[in-house]
Amino acid sequence: MAKDKKLVESITSMDEDFAQWYTDIVKKAELIEYTSVKGCMVIRPYAYAIWENIQHILDGMFKATGHENVCMPMFIPESLLQKEKDHVEGFAPEVAWVTMGGSEKLEDRLCVRPTSETLFCEHYANIVHSYRDLPKLYNQWVSVVRWEKTTRPFLRSREFLWQEGHTIHATAQEAIEETERMLNVYADFCEHSLAMPVIKGRKTESDKFAGAVATYAIEALMHDGKALQAGTSHYFGDGFAKAFDIEYTDKENKRVNPHQTSWGVTTRLIGAIIMTHGDNSGLVLPPAVAPIQAVIVPIAQHKEGVLEKANQLAEALKAQGIRVKLDDSDNSPGWKFAEYEMKGVPVRIEIGPKDIEQSQCIVATRYNGEKQPVALDEAYGTLVQTVQQLLDKTIPEGMFAKALENRTNRTYDCTSLEEITRALEEKGDGFIMAMWCGDEACEDKVKEVTGVGSRCIPMEQRHIADTCVCCGKPAKHMVCWGKAY
Amino acid sequence: MAKDKKLVESITSMDEDFAQWYTDIVKKAELIEYTSVKGCMVIRPYAYAIWENIQHILDGMFKATGHENVCMPMFIPESLLQKEKDHVEGFAPEVAWVTMGGSEKLEDRLCVRPTSETLFCEHYANIVHSYRDLPKLYNQWVSVVRWEKTTRPFLRSREFLWQEGHTIHATAQEAIEETERMLNVYADFCEHSLAMPVIKGRKTESDKFAGAVATYAIEALMHDGKALQAGTSHYFGDGFAKAFDIEYTDKENKRVNPHQTSWGVTTRLIGAIIMTHGDNSGLVLPPAVAPIQAVIVPIAQHKEGVLEKANQLAEALKAQGIRVKLDDSDNSPGWKFAEYEMKGVPVRIEIGPKDIEQSQCIVATRYNGEKQPVALDEAYGTLVQTVQQLLDKTIPEGMFAKALENRTNRTYDCTSLEEITRALEEKGDGFIMAMWCGDEACEDKVKEVTGVGSRCIPMEQRHIADTCVCCGKPAKHMVCWGKAY
Repeated sequence: MAKDKKLVESITSMDEDFAQWYTDIVKKAELIEYTSVKGCMVIRPYAYAIWENIQHILDGMFKATGHENVCMPMFIPESLLQKEKDHVEGFAPEVAWVTMGGSEKLEDRLCVRPTSETLFCEHYANIVHSYRDLPKLYNQWVSVVRWEKTTRPFLRSREFLWQEGHTIHATAQEAIEETERMLNVYADFCEHSLAMPVIKGRKTESDKFAGAVATYAIEALMHDGKALQAGTSHYFGDGFAKAFDIEYTDKENKRVNPHQTSWGVTTRLIGAIIMTHGDNSGLVLPPAVAPIQAVIVPIAQHKEGVLEKANQLAEALKAQGIRVKLDDSDNSPGWKFAEYEMKGVPVRIEIGPKDIEQSQCIVATRYNGEKQPVALDEAYGTLVQTVQQLLDKTIPEGMFAKALENRTNRTYDCTSLEEITRALEEKGDGFIMAMWCGDEACEDKVKEVTGVGSRCIPMEQRHIADTCVCCGKPAKHMVCWGKAY
Repeated sequence: MAKDKKLVESITSMDEDFAQWYTDIVKKAELIEYTSVKGCMVIRPYAYAIWENIQHILDGMFKATGHENVCMPMFIPESLLQKEKDHVEGFAPEVAWVTMGGSEKLEDRLCVRPTSETLFCEHYANIVHSYRDLPKLYNQWVSVVRWEKTTRPFLRSREFLWQEGHTIHATAQEAIEETERMLNVYADFCEHSLAMPVIKGRKTESDKFAGAVATYAIEALMHDGKALQAGTSHYFGDGFAKAFDIEYTDKENKRVNPHQTSWGVTTRLIGAIIMTHGDNSGLVLPPAVAPIQAVIVPIAQHKEGVLEKANQLAEALKAQGIRVKLDDSDNSPGWKFAEYEMKGVPVRIEIGPKDIEQSQCIVATRYNGEKQPVALDEAYGTLVQTVQQLLDKTIPEGMFAKALENRTNRTYDCTSLEEITRALEEKGDGFIMAMWCGDEACEDKVKEVTGVGSRCIPMEQRHIADTCVCCGKPAKHMVCWGKAY
């Protein structure tokens, strides 16, 4: 069998070369294929199905919090991009420019959106007139382009998929609440649906989104101890509104500027899933976003009754809304085991002649390799219940606990630059928790001396010391530091 | 009330100026807003929600026929676009070119995809090696760009949303079956979910997709008698495979070229809905894709018990999965009636103090203006059942019959060019059914003399005459002719 060749080539061990291990999984689990355009990749069906599940859950959360989807054009005229000073400075160097339409040279060249604040502002200026028009709680699911020099699948590509929420409110207070609400939505989603613990925090001034008053983020720690920004939520104040002449008439008949936010997560989350949960056998997918939640592998499937029984199990699980696949191809069970381990399918069900004799099947869980026999009783009630319990509770909670344990083991409280350097050397990369005076010079020096940058100022503050880890002056915040993807 | 101003401005009558009527609806039903980039528009939440419903139904039909979603990059290098000769000739004149990435000039300029055959071909060349890798049944939901000179909302815009299916098969037979299968999926969707009758047919040689062996299409007749191409399905043979060096090893161990198809529908379908079903009060939406299927308008809502009752009705309908909105804003009932008529909401439910006294409510259907009292019995069972029946059957069937009647009244069998001209003059624009010899010169002459072009060669042929409507030589096909959007 030609396909069995795959079994032979195993992937690089994550302890040996984490970056190569990542690239191997991306390729072998059929997530990404490269194209002839550098940094632009094909998101293959298995990865796209993960993204569709992410979209489905998040979109439900957005709609439950009152948001509507909309679709802006992908092109931004250069003159529009330039209206907000900080914003254009932040994005202009990394955009793709359309300069020709057919054979005609464009007068005002167009950039392919790197983000859509400017387009939403232009639209809001057209449709927001009175306090009755507020708030507008909009979101869109699109792709954006940023002309990155070095790229990696899911983590940094020139085009990537994301959602971008853009909201506009009558008051600063409402907009601030929205910024926080969406940060919490992201954190809930990551912790519950992706089984990935995150730290919620505010970015320092030097790390803010171009044009924002405040940027909030969720930060996750990958298996190798590097940090990954998994989602951001920005509060804009009325800066964009002023730059784009967005005004409304309030209840006192005064003309005032509204307040805005934006927030987004990207296909980067798929990279985060790989690096949080994956192991040396491949992907490990959280059940909520797994395209196949349970795979049924028949053993000795040519023997009488095996495929029939396997089909009955599949039907019983499907009837409960479980995403189940019965693989009755002519590949060997060994090949199938390796294949679905590589693809990170949360639950595997084995059924063969001996099992049928004993009126049972074997249920294996991907994340910890445990196997248990499950009785095949009437209508397969016990099996359905067992699998449901695994998918809804046991597996996500177990995966979360495992990821949290890794983060806890790799979080180091430090009170001096020497302690930071020593912790990283002795224990490996991780989150450093250390106090900061608030001075950008200290932030820069920590990075320069120890190699870790500020990831965020966590919402949940702890008192580690009285003074800044760098300069010894009175500390203002505990900062979470790390090396970032 | 500021919002009540809207009531005063009515829309242009469709009989007076159909084009202006269309533009008025697009604006007043809050479907589209223009931007500063010519031909690129904002799809507003109400229109985007229609598109999401279209996507949801079609995506289910695609998956039920074995297709998987995938996502290709939006950029095509010029060198890749040029690989298939007919294809590049067809598309190169109307693409947007990216020539700069950041401040760097690109060596190989990139076009923003006008369609993605070339990208899929490049990908297939990478992943298709053996007969075991076939077929690949892929689809993607993305936006594409074509640099059109004149644009109209939904019908022709420089950027539009669509889905593009791209499949690759071991044999020509399989690919031809796929082309027909997807044409039928489109026709079923239009007739059942959009209540829009369509004619399935093959395009003539002069009207084929650039690079196709055969192009099939569904053609719909708009209220004004103009034709609209609502979806296309192309059979490519092995032409693209040869141009892109896609080969696989068959069961006899020979290297052969596979066969391909592609098929697509776009946000143009929203334009088709407007012009098939709309009237002088605004949009009329088919229930399957209506963002709001039933709106509840309370009468004298300040009176005791009215809002309470209205809320109970809303909850009862929601529990059945009906998309219901209760409008308890302080706008007048008259304003609300006009607003939801403009927005084409299929069912309106009125409930006021008098109704409550009589233990009833009034149910009005948008497409024909009929009203009926419905008893409010236990758990509102009769109301729920009545509304469900209206949404699932009565309304879509009634809308379909109405659209079909318009098409029947506007379909003219003709046997000479004079008959065509007379029919159009006397009865107005419509579908002309007339025989054709198969010669492109005659096709051109029909267009030149009468103004109608060939829309398609219908699958369902009728024998109208023995000879070509133009030259009098023996006829090969009955052709459906019309003026197209």
